Amino acid sequence: MKKSLLAASVAALLLSQLGMAATQLDSEKYPIQIEKVTDGLSHPWGMAVMPDGGLLVTERSGNLRIISTSGQVSDPIKGLPAVRAYGQGGLLDVQLDPDFASNQWVYFSFSEPLNDGKESSTAVARAKLNGDSLSELEIIFRANPKLDSPYHFGSRLVFDRQGNLFITLGDRGSRRQDAQTLDTHHGKVVRISKNGDIPKDNPYINQDNALDEIWSLGHRNMQGAALHPQTGELWTHEHGPQGGDEINIARATKNYGWPVITYGEEYGGGKIGTTSQDGLEQPLYYWVPSIAPSGMMFYSGKLFDNWQGNLLVGSLKFSQLVRLELDGDKVIHEERMDIGQRVRDVEQGPDGTLYLLTDQPDGQLLKLTPAK
Amino acid sequence: MKKSLLAASVAALLLSQLGMAATQLDSEKYPIQIEKVTDGLSHPWGMAVMPDGGLLVTERSGNLRIISTSGQVSDPIKGLPAVRAYGQGGLLDVQLDPDFASNQWVYFSFSEPLNDGKESSTAVARAKLNGDSLSELEIIFRANPKLDSPYHFGSRLVFDRQGNLFITLGDRGSRRQDAQTLDTHHGKVVRISKNGDIPKDNPYINQDNALDEIWSLGHRNMQGAALHPQTGELWTHEHGPQGGDEINIARATKNYGWPVITYGEEYGGGKIGTTSQDGLEQPLYYWVPSIAPSGMMFYSGKLFDNWQGNLLVGSLKFSQLVRLELDGDKVIHEERMDIGQRVRDVEQGPDGTLYLLTDQPDGQLLKLTPAK
Repeated sequence: MKKSLLAASVAALLLSQLGMAATQLDSEKYPIQIEKVTDGLSHPWGMAVMPDGGLLVTERSGNLRIISTSGQVSDPIKGLPAVRAYGQGGLLDVQLDPDFASNQWVYFSFSEPLNDGKESSTAVARAKLNGDSLSELEIIFRANPKLDSPYHFGSRLVFDRQGNLFITLGDRGSRRQDAQTLDTHHGKVVRISKNGDIPKDNPYINQDNALDEIWSLGHRNMQGAALHPQTGELWTHEHGPQGGDEINIARATKNYGWPVITYGEEYGGGKIGTTSQDGLEQPLYYWVPSIAPSGMMFYSGKLFDNWQGNLLVGSLKFSQLVRLELDGDKVIHEERMDIGQRVRDVEQGPDGTLYLLTDQPDGQLLKLTPAK
Repeated sequence: MKKSLLAASVAALLLSQLGMAATQLDSEKYPIQIEKVTDGLSHPWGMAVMPDGGLLVTERSGNLRIISTSGQVSDPIKGLPAVRAYGQGGLLDVQLDPDFASNQWVYFSFSEPLNDGKESSTAVARAKLNGDSLSELEIIFRANPKLDSPYHFGSRLVFDRQGNLFITLGDRGSRRQDAQTLDTHHGKVVRISKNGDIPKDNPYINQDNALDEIWSLGHRNMQGAALHPQTGELWTHEHGPQGGDEINIARATKNYGWPVITYGEEYGGGKIGTTSQDGLEQPLYYWVPSIAPSGMMFYSGKLFDNWQGNLLVGSLKFSQLVRLELDGDKVIHEERMDIGQRVRDVEQGPDGTLYLLTDQPDGQLLKLTPAK
């Protein structure tokens, strides 16, 4: 007992010497040590774990940086396109190619300025990452139509098992009805190949008057998505209006109902549609009041072995990490852990370490491990 | 606006003249008016709605009373058996025969004193209710073995669609392993006919070394049970130890795992078994920390029309009414409403009014309606 206390003291001392603040959080299954790996990130939004365990991190203001395993933050990676960092837009998610180690492709979503910056639209680009710069940049997807709105860009990136890319897209706020029509990308999950082609098994590829990229519809603003480790299906969450944040399994051609059905209401009060209707999917789970979810993953590491298969979700509004236990497609338990900062993204390191990005002007990368 | 405020004031005035305290609770779907119908009940435990809308209410100390639709509380009904009101035991649940209007049978569960009151066991009796007294009293079930323990008697009563009676039974605290064996009634759901016979389709009727009444096993202490309005299946909840309160669908021969698997732990800390094992059922939903659930019903009224099909559960520990929205057998949303007193039982009146019993020495009957 004395020995482990001593070890903990030494560890705390080492951490303080490294400039890392460590705090402890009691959770249902573990006491958790939270270390600040770095701060000074400008509204970090998305991250991807690199083969060496370092992290590729976006800042919404338009920079992409590498944070090494020792916590060193690189200068901005060169070669990014212009982004319109306005409202909820900017440089958003980032994802590595499943074959990144051999091909160096990275994919990122952003709000692309159009018409002299008066409009913007969610776009996805890919480029090859070599050292501190990108090359061979190509825009592989542009959401249509363009719009002058600062709201609801989505946009998480998830590869499916066939190597195609899912992109989650918001309804852009001012045009919520677009989520119900197949002639816009707003409020949709879309699916493209790595180079922007349309996968030949996309569900609307042979339907006239429907955009070929569309996978599912009736979404509001999805800032979390992850592939289920067993089923390979895409799970998403989305922000409800005032209440009614949802978790869904985004299945081809399914309509998740926004804004016809929702468990939320207008900001300040007022009914929006109803809560259920034939032909529209009910959520798998929903929150009232809204937690403002961002970031989502299925935990699969050994470090928090009692969390395996659990769904982890960040909460902006309540500054929490939310843990959901599942039995198939049923949520059987929810835990809320107070992080003390708005949680924007959640990822898992190679050893099972959990990383969180916090949504602040002076945003942080936090590292969570079971406390010894 | 002014008009409705005036109306609310008049209503509040009328209520105060009637001696009813009315408070208002904001909930997700309704502002709710909570009226105290009566107080002075000694740890009320169970209630049943009579054909005229009055309530038959048990007090754990051993009395059964009728509370009329106008809120009048009767003297104790005569003709009850002796009960051992000790610890968690006493007079517990009450249920009307599905044909009560024509046959006057009422059923009630209680801890029956045995061996000069040194031991007790959960028993179920029935008797005919005429006016202010019971007649033709008969004990139709006795849980075995008898035990000197003040804990975990169960015992909710629910009729299935065939007119057989489900009884939920606790593990009696000191003998938790009994929940895993088929030679005791502890920690089981049992099923009997109205007169105590064994229904011929009971699952263990032809199995040697198994008690014929047993329906399902591996339960800890179930103080809530209700028949699903669509499927006709029995839903139960049970108290976990320190954490791990569960909701289950109690299916014939299924083993719900206590104490081999649980999401709870020993009081004061310490592992109990594990959380999952092949052949043992996972809960449909569970709570950590424990809410200490008691009373359960599926709401089917018109008054709270947005609650139809929802599962309502009382919380002793948090003094709440818990509302769960379902999609099939999935809990898709949970709401907690603060009642301010330990909620022991939940029932619905003929017009959809919701009634709560509060677990206090000076317990109350509360009436919940949507506030105008």
